[in-house]
Amino acid sequence: MDHRMGPVIIPGVPDEEMPGKLIVLEGTDGVGRSTQMRLLRNWLESSGLAVYDTGLTRGRLAGSHIQQAKEGHTMGRRTQALFYATDFADRLEREIIPAMRAGYVVLTDRYVYSLMARAAVRGMEPEWVRKLYAFAPTPDVVLYLRITLGKLVPRVLASGGFDYWESGMDYRREATLYSAFVKHQAALLEQFEQLAQEHEFRVVNAEQPIRKVFDDLQEHVTDVVSEMVEAHQMSDFVAPAMPQPPAVQHDRSEVAESLRDLLSSLLEDGSAEDRSAEKGT
Amino acid sequence: MDHRMGPVIIPGVPDEEMPGKLIVLEGTDGVGRSTQMRLLRNWLESSGLAVYDTGLTRGRLAGSHIQQAKEGHTMGRRTQALFYATDFADRLEREIIPAMRAGYVVLTDRYVYSLMARAAVRGMEPEWVRKLYAFAPTPDVVLYLRITLGKLVPRVLASGGFDYWESGMDYRREATLYSAFVKHQAALLEQFEQLAQEHEFRVVNAEQPIRKVFDDLQEHVTDVVSEMVEAHQMSDFVAPAMPQPPAVQHDRSEVAESLRDLLSSLLEDGSAEDRSAEKGT
Repeated sequence: MDHRMGPVIIPGVPDEEMPGKLIVLEGTDGVGRSTQMRLLRNWLESSGLAVYDTGLTRGRLAGSHIQQAKEGHTMGRRTQALFYATDFADRLEREIIPAMRAGYVVLTDRYVYSLMARAAVRGMEPEWVRKLYAFAPTPDVVLYLRITLGKLVPRVLASGGFDYWESGMDYRREATLYSAFVKHQAALLEQFEQLAQEHEFRVVNAEQPIRKVFDDLQEHVTDVVSEMVEAHQMSDFVAPAMPQPPAVQHDRSEVAESLRDLLSSLLEDGSAEDRSAEKGT
Repeated sequence: MDHRMGPVIIPGVPDEEMPGKLIVLEGTDGVGRSTQMRLLRNWLESSGLAVYDTGLTRGRLAGSHIQQAKEGHTMGRRTQALFYATDFADRLEREIIPAMRAGYVVLTDRYVYSLMARAAVRGMEPEWVRKLYAFAPTPDVVLYLRITLGKLVPRVLASGGFDYWESGMDYRREATLYSAFVKHQAALLEQFEQLAQEHEFRVVNAEQPIRKVFDDLQEHVTDVVSEMVEAHQMSDFVAPAMPQPPAVQHDRSEVAESLRDLLSSLLEDGSAEDRSAEKGT
């Protein structure tokens, strides 16, 4: 497999295949990525694989600056788009490529697709954005958690309301957070659908109960990692996902997302079988 | 005139012409840009024009971070290239475009071309770099201070030696700073020659005495600003350039460059007429 999106050569990335695997989990804000990331990581590790997990805006160089700039709302749109690209490049060069060279299964909570969608809804030219991220290695699989706006809104309401950034308030002039959230997320979901076609996402219905979503994800991931582990060695272990105390390295948004997932599951999911998975029994 | 490099639409940049002018001074490290920037600014202001001057790595957002990262040498090459692009975008969105909308003559000490050359010699794909900077407005004129490597080396020696970054030591493995400087600057000059053809630079021979270089620059700039000022109103005033105390806002590299220009002029330029210009009489 060729780890490139296009004809662009990546300095520092060898043309030959790297021994690791790159597994991307994509989906909009509040769709339940954190929960599934944790389940996937635990499952892969219990199958004997070395897993490196990472996520957007956690790059060491620019991550803190992005947080600062977000808080001050000080960047222009072009600058913001390039700042996210810089942070991604830092994470790629420091974490993802070294981990793939070392044979890890790299599991990342969002990738360039979220950045492309964000930039596109803020008016950046799709062609410019596509070229900007041409240096990103093509993942072995992109798992896309698909949800309709109608299902997303109650989940976010259940989690306590609408976040400034998840509502696109930095670029939309809307009277209410609710109105901004609906329009911003609708635009994002449209971008994700286009990206899903262009980049062959494996689409998983995120409106299902957590355990069913995880079953679907496992199926796609098994296709990718089966050559690294004998099929009969793949664990059927599902780690207790909830409730669990927030780990110290989790930031507030991850904890909030976990709580949101839990609440929305409790609101929407009545089956005892599925609740048992959520409660970790 | 269309302020775009290519077919890319710039959000926030109107299609209609902005009333200001964009004048770019380009050239490699140590070629004498700071001196000429000062002469140009004083001359334009004494002609009654509102001048806004700026330069690379002075963007408010990323400038200080670039300095920090430089000192720590902590960035990968892709990250470094994107960090410079972010800083440029910040300067463009906050300074250059607002100033051009307000009718200023924007005079900038380096522009995207220096960034393109830097990125290219560090292995970034020329096509990727070109697309990356497609959002940059096309200048009204690009003044390029051309110098041969043979003339550049004694100037830099006269200024006290070779700087780590000007020698490309962040990406070259050379035994000595001298060897690194020569190879890095040779590669940069080659990039500038390509850019000069592609982007129609006005080439000025920087091996001439300071006053002669300035005369040539004035000629090109007059073509651009003559529509803003009646020709007979253009000042023939040349501000006293040297010696002058370092202004507080000048950073060390600017002061060093001024000193280097002065020393190299004294070493290379024997005519009384030219020295009188340098000494501000």
